Amino acid sequence: MKIFSTKVKKFFDKILIELKIPKNHRDLLIKSLIDSSIRGVDSHGIRLFSHYVKCIENGRIKAKPQMKLIKKNKGIAVYDADDGLGHVAALKASNIVSKMAKKNGIASIAIINSSHYGAAGVYSHEIAKDQCVGFSFTHTDAFAMPYNGKGAFHGTNPYSFTTPINNKDYLHVDFSSTSIAWNKVMRARSNSTKLSSEVAIDSKGNYTTDPYEAIALAPMGGKEYGHKGFGLSSSVEIMCGPLIGMAHGYRLLSMIGPDFSTPRKLGHFLIAISLDSFTTKKKYFNGIKQYIKDLKKQKSKNIRNPILYPGELEKITSKHRLKYGIPIDKELKTDFLYLAKKFKINFNL
Amino acid sequence: MKIFSTKVKKFFDKILIELKIPKNHRDLLIKSLIDSSIRGVDSHGIRLFSHYVKCIENGRIKAKPQMKLIKKNKGIAVYDADDGLGHVAALKASNIVSKMAKKNGIASIAIINSSHYGAAGVYSHEIAKDQCVGFSFTHTDAFAMPYNGKGAFHGTNPYSFTTPINNKDYLHVDFSSTSIAWNKVMRARSNSTKLSSEVAIDSKGNYTTDPYEAIALAPMGGKEYGHKGFGLSSSVEIMCGPLIGMAHGYRLLSMIGPDFSTPRKLGHFLIAISLDSFTTKKKYFNGIKQYIKDLKKQKSKNIRNPILYPGELEKITSKHRLKYGIPIDKELKTDFLYLAKKFKINFNL
Repeated sequence: MKIFSTKVKKFFDKILIELKIPKNHRDLLIKSLIDSSIRGVDSHGIRLFSHYVKCIENGRIKAKPQMKLIKKNKGIAVYDADDGLGHVAALKASNIVSKMAKKNGIASIAIINSSHYGAAGVYSHEIAKDQCVGFSFTHTDAFAMPYNGKGAFHGTNPYSFTTPINNKDYLHVDFSSTSIAWNKVMRARSNSTKLSSEVAIDSKGNYTTDPYEAIALAPMGGKEYGHKGFGLSSSVEIMCGPLIGMAHGYRLLSMIGPDFSTPRKLGHFLIAISLDSFTTKKKYFNGIKQYIKDLKKQKSKNIRNPILYPGELEKITSKHRLKYGIPIDKELKTDFLYLAKKFKINFNL
Repeated sequence: MKIFSTKVKKFFDKILIELKIPKNHRDLLIKSLIDSSIRGVDSHGIRLFSHYVKCIENGRIKAKPQMKLIKKNKGIAVYDADDGLGHVAALKASNIVSKMAKKNGIASIAIINSSHYGAAGVYSHEIAKDQCVGFSFTHTDAFAMPYNGKGAFHGTNPYSFTTPINNKDYLHVDFSSTSIAWNKVMRARSNSTKLSSEVAIDSKGNYTTDPYEAIALAPMGGKEYGHKGFGLSSSVEIMCGPLIGMAHGYRLLSMIGPDFSTPRKLGHFLIAISLDSFTTKKKYFNGIKQYIKDLKKQKSKNIRNPILYPGELEKITSKHRLKYGIPIDKELKTDFLYLAKKFKINFNL
């Protein structure tokens, strides 16, 4: 089953109006979720809408926050999300930081007192649209073991980087510092399938493929090289916690409750670098064109899977989903129909 | 067998004098190599000295380059290494960029026309000594396959991040975006051992554990998650190539020759963020202290291997090596004795 983004947009908008979310905030939240789903990031797109609804209804996320830029000086800015929607704050901050980078060459913005902002890549992508290199980082509550640990400590702390290739395409990197997301464990449980090896641990700290035994995710790199994923995750934690005056992720309330009424006060961190900071734009675009050309000429292991540049799969997926719609599984369908009924919205699938 | 850093320093200095390297450059190269070896990064420390000697002798690296800062404006600087020693240029640039970050909050410096700079972590660490968060990136020539590829394209493109924990300790992350370095393949060949799984590929693009079959490294993450290592590597490539007007790594001459006379013109990229940019230093230090405290309280899988914060192993190694010396294997011993004989230096091991 598939759904077109225009239909999702109308449906979400009606619910958000009921929840008294201001127009601009509704637009930005919907934009962030649909952008993710269109690109194929199903784990962080429209699937999470009902979660945000729950957070707004219960007070974890404020419907009418007083978001504001509380600091802006040379290369640095701080944007206070006032416990509102992380997506809204981060999209606003993306537009601020890219403009700062235009004047200053490089700039960074911290988003404080925020909530879950969806997919990190939405914001590095937004920055890149403004002719900059964009980075986006967020911490989350504890899901991943420290290297050699036997319990959860870091979040899935993602690394995201986007830069323009030409006037319409982007090189886009967005990955979590764990091999898999926790929802893969949940799905393996409901589908009675096994997990891949070295992606999750049991309560003794041993790697397990049994989703019921899994109590924490493992950092990317697995048994031998998990110190790499752990190190990356730690650096993201510092940027989104101590460096910007927020608590580190281990001290955050759990995303999945049971408390849905207390603001979680997450931190996000964005960096923008103007494309013409170090060389001319012309030289930059020639350079990246050459890079993509050389990369695409590389032989692939399997002729049916040509080498893709980072973000190319998302580009292909976007084209397809814009034309044919966003896939919806049974779980999401149930979710949407439940919301439609609850908010008395005429909606069918 | 072990050697004290003071002895190495004197030995290297004598050779570098013979090679007509100016005093300041000798000091900085030696500092970089010894810093790496003391911290335990044996692959990038004093082991590479003879390689640099060869590069200087043959002209790839200029003995007396005219290094200079060719751009400095707000958050951006460009440092031209003029085909001199990458270590020297990057240490000088580290000190420039951290000072810029103090004024501007965040700053970045590109090092252009450079040569191999050793371990990336030396420079993020140098930045962190100046009360900043430091990032250090470099590209290298082709060693790693693109995800799904069957030949080398990216370098081992490292990610390095360092930040102070207190007035003497650092949280320090420094890892390559491949699971292993190429010299592990070389060593497995000489020791007739197998490689770990999913760290290298054969000429058909299949993962191989046979070091003789290995023709390229695999991005970290292996078969299932190698797109993550590949994405990280690609972002590093953009920062060290197109963004700063340098060629991307695939177009660089090979580090290991046969051409040792043509400058390779590598790019490096450093970022510094002042610790008091977003919050007060006091709040930052309280935050990171709490983070380390919480992390150290986590249970480890094996009681003999307590949870270490990133950089803690390097701290322990440093203490040990400062007291007992840097280990030297047979290969390095042979290398040093060869150099001693060649440069007629009274040196024994």
